[in-house]
Amino acid sequence: MKMHGWRASAGRILKLSSRPGRGNPARHGSLHRSGGSCRGTQFYFGHKQPLSVHLQGKECALGVSFIQSQCFGSIATKIQRNPEFATINSDDIRYFRDLLGEKNVIQDEDALLAANMDWMRKYQGSSKLLLLPRSTEEVSQVLKYCNSRCLAVVPQGGNTGLVGGSVPVFDEVIVNLGSMNKVISFDEVSGILVSEAGCILESLVNFLDNNGFIMPLDLGSKGSCQIGGNVSTNAGGLRLIRYGSLHANVLGLEAVLANGDVLNMLGTLRKDNTGYDLKHLFIGSEGSLGIVTKVSILTPPKLSSVNVAFLACTDYLSCQKLLLEVRRKLGEVLSAFEFLDEQAMDLALNHLEGVRNPLPPALHKFYVLIETTGSDERSDREKLEAFLAHSMEEGLISDGVVAQDIQQASSVWNIREGIAEALMKAGAVYKYDLSIPVEKIYDIVEELRNKLGHLTRVVGFGHLGDGNLHLNISCPQYDDAVLAQIEPFVYEWTSKHGGSISAEHGLGLMKADKIFYSKSPAAVQLMASVKNLLDPNHILNPYKVLPHSLSSP
Amino acid sequence: MKMHGWRASAGRILKLSSRPGRGNPARHGSLHRSGGSCRGTQFYFGHKQPLSVHLQGKECALGVSFIQSQCFGSIATKIQRNPEFATINSDDIRYFRDLLGEKNVIQDEDALLAANMDWMRKYQGSSKLLLLPRSTEEVSQVLKYCNSRCLAVVPQGGNTGLVGGSVPVFDEVIVNLGSMNKVISFDEVSGILVSEAGCILESLVNFLDNNGFIMPLDLGSKGSCQIGGNVSTNAGGLRLIRYGSLHANVLGLEAVLANGDVLNMLGTLRKDNTGYDLKHLFIGSEGSLGIVTKVSILTPPKLSSVNVAFLACTDYLSCQKLLLEVRRKLGEVLSAFEFLDEQAMDLALNHLEGVRNPLPPALHKFYVLIETTGSDERSDREKLEAFLAHSMEEGLISDGVVAQDIQQASSVWNIREGIAEALMKAGAVYKYDLSIPVEKIYDIVEELRNKLGHLTRVVGFGHLGDGNLHLNISCPQYDDAVLAQIEPFVYEWTSKHGGSISAEHGLGLMKADKIFYSKSPAAVQLMASVKNLLDPNHILNPYKVLPHSLSSP
Repeated sequence: MKMHGWRASAGRILKLSSRPGRGNPARHGSLHRSGGSCRGTQFYFGHKQPLSVHLQGKECALGVSFIQSQCFGSIATKIQRNPEFATINSDDIRYFRDLLGEKNVIQDEDALLAANMDWMRKYQGSSKLLLLPRSTEEVSQVLKYCNSRCLAVVPQGGNTGLVGGSVPVFDEVIVNLGSMNKVISFDEVSGILVSEAGCILESLVNFLDNNGFIMPLDLGSKGSCQIGGNVSTNAGGLRLIRYGSLHANVLGLEAVLANGDVLNMLGTLRKDNTGYDLKHLFIGSEGSLGIVTKVSILTPPKLSSVNVAFLACTDYLSCQKLLLEVRRKLGEVLSAFEFLDEQAMDLALNHLEGVRNPLPPALHKFYVLIETTGSDERSDREKLEAFLAHSMEEGLISDGVVAQDIQQASSVWNIREGIAEALMKAGAVYKYDLSIPVEKIYDIVEELRNKLGHLTRVVGFGHLGDGNLHLNISCPQYDDAVLAQIEPFVYEWTSKHGGSISAEHGLGLMKADKIFYSKSPAAVQLMASVKNLLDPNHILNPYKVLPHSLSSP
Repeated sequence: MKMHGWRASAGRILKLSSRPGRGNPARHGSLHRSGGSCRGTQFYFGHKQPLSVHLQGKECALGVSFIQSQCFGSIATKIQRNPEFATINSDDIRYFRDLLGEKNVIQDEDALLAANMDWMRKYQGSSKLLLLPRSTEEVSQVLKYCNSRCLAVVPQGGNTGLVGGSVPVFDEVIVNLGSMNKVISFDEVSGILVSEAGCILESLVNFLDNNGFIMPLDLGSKGSCQIGGNVSTNAGGLRLIRYGSLHANVLGLEAVLANGDVLNMLGTLRKDNTGYDLKHLFIGSEGSLGIVTKVSILTPPKLSSVNVAFLACTDYLSCQKLLLEVRRKLGEVLSAFEFLDEQAMDLALNHLEGVRNPLPPALHKFYVLIETTGSDERSDREKLEAFLAHSMEEGLISDGVVAQDIQQASSVWNIREGIAEALMKAGAVYKYDLSIPVEKIYDIVEELRNKLGHLTRVVGFGHLGDGNLHLNISCPQYDDAVLAQIEPFVYEWTSKHGGSISAEHGLGLMKADKIFYSKSPAAVQLMASVKNLLDPNHILNPYKVLPHSLSSP
């Protein structure tokens, strides 16, 4: 019996003991990892760390200056600063100091450098002013003033975005929500959490953990990203397959409009059909329609049993069939279905410290990470093991392990969550975040690999259970000739196959002009009308989300 | 051991055998029931049944004419027909006949009577024209023409709404989508279904059942209601606790705007962050922003094991504690958590044929229906039984049964789903659909009972798992003095306790002017601006959703 052989050969049918008092134990190892190294240095606003902590630019071998000039430079040539926007003067500074207090009006160059640059160091603005409001009323006064002066504004959370949405393009005023980081209420009966927008995702995870609940979203950047930014970008992440998107889980919002009006949509009810559900406009609009200041979210109870399996498949079709089977056989406990190809595994093994392949050294073509979360340890494990045995017999899995404890689960998660970091360390990288019908997801990886030849490494991984491919092209250095082979090919291919050119990262600055690959002209025109309605002076996050031709007043 | 005693005394620990090849077997009995009697007579458009089938007005003892004049009359006194709307003339008829063909332009009085009146026979318009477009292009041409002529339009699906949203108030043109009832595509890998808006929910349930999937929503009116209407009203129903609202499950829409523009938002992807997610504007806006013509929806795989338990509790606090426990202990398999009070049970037993209480004749104060749906029959049943034994020991449950087969499950569901019908048969009824924080849900029932005294019967039941109370006041006949005691008390109480005056029924005509009990003036003003943007002549479903003061052009 194959399953027996599998068990015997590797001795790897292991169980993850769940640890009471922690959120999702499987994720904690990676959490600490991602909180360290490069990313930890620049996102301190939310924690009220000193603002003097800023980019050193030397800690990570990311080829920073090259990326920056490469990517930002080529976009900047296409965009002109909107001449209708005013520039900051001493009266403005005086107004903001009176309003917010001196220490919340930042003009220090080092602090501004960190706030002007995204975490990939790919996009850099030249803002001269960072504001740290402490209340909705202060955000309201800031926007009212900026709108009256026609000062452009970039709303900023943890600044962990990947498309240049959270940093200025030119000299926009940065409004960082990190000082608004209080939990407002939590209802243990319904699991409904209300918090300010600047709460770090991880701090909410920890708060809920103490109350026996979990956040319905989990991201690699949880140590830095803020819930307001998560909502504004409709962040996806690792639990979407189980709990759905933020459109499913956010019950209410408070947002400040461009003119300073406070829009109270902060419902705490699971069902409310009274008029148009306006909050959805602010979920995923990347701060361009208003600044989210409070969030009400439905959180699921923490279930006691978590199991993580790491499996090898010989071909992509097996991964796909495995997904179909797991939905049907483990549907009610499935909490993650992630995949990576052998190129991704190779990168992780070569560029991340302490990462090892839990399967025998022979590289497999594909790896799948399955996580289940349920209430009954014994029956969950039995179901998972029965499923794995059956999948082995069917030939869908060629090898695999089940994590035995938190450390093993974490180390498996570290492989998957570490790929982005490994890619950054490996050299130059072109990153795409695509939704594609599951049957076709790996076709684009192979087509691109054939097209680009052996000078680049085309890497595919992502949230297979949600049809979300992270397509990355790794090469020794940035090269316009390579880029010309990738774009617009990737966008055209995705559009032709009914996909989305941004599954979860948003459009930001990077893809504002690419929206037509995924949305109809009529839909984009209506988006522009909605933008005009809510922000007639277009002061909020200018040059982002919508095509530049439509986003000028 | 109490659990043993419970088992032994009633011999009622029974198992529901799941039957392959059916959707949710537990619901089929009630489905046939609700498809029969009164409601079956008037919603045939979607099935392309002869339009000569219409209201007889004698088949049901609902006190029709009284309800009608009572409720509609009092609202009509407050609303004037918008004089800017044109009236139908012979040129219009000629245009529509050329466009749609003679048989799809209905002027027959009997057919119009059915389309003018809601299923409760509470609201009645006086439209002279019913149109049955067969394609998006026809809907587009109809709206373009109506907009140019300033002819008001009521979009209509299965006409099963409860707030007067789906029938004309005056002489609006009725556009019924029932002829657009084709399934367009179904992807068995992802479970994504795309269909025309006029598909009857039950026909989609059956279609999916043959493919091993289920709809993420289930409603008592599934035999009549259409998916386009479900989406336009953000219908809730019985599976929301498991799968979330339609904002969570609808992946894409096609909608026709008031000016005839077709808005293609018909994505079939689980994740798509490219610009503002406009489809959410059309979910729950009750046809007042556009007519939904196609729907793309994520459907979950059908799981093989369904269990239904019917339990008695001595007080409301026990129901609430049971909900907390069930979320934690059976969270991953829970698919329904419904409750009814003894007054609701009493009504069902006295007014519905073939309904019996599966528990001993002594009336309990509260009843809870729990349904679980999972992939593993044995472990699901064991988990449920262990949970019930524990809940008995804890004193949360005083008695209970677990259905042994489909018939038993159906007969239990029939009690819960039959309450609305029982109320209609019992005499006059004032119906409220409230979201209230779970801790306080039953407070309003008791307060109202004390306030109204013994001349009325105050009945509480609903989707407790979602915080949704259906509050009904049953009395021998309609009485303005009784109504004056109920309203605005119910709305004020709900508002004061952070609730919603419409959890799932929408606002329609009934509650358009009550919106401020649940939404802030700024939010309502923004809704009105969105309405102006999308439908500047306000031809779509006039007098509904928004306050009359704001909904005139």
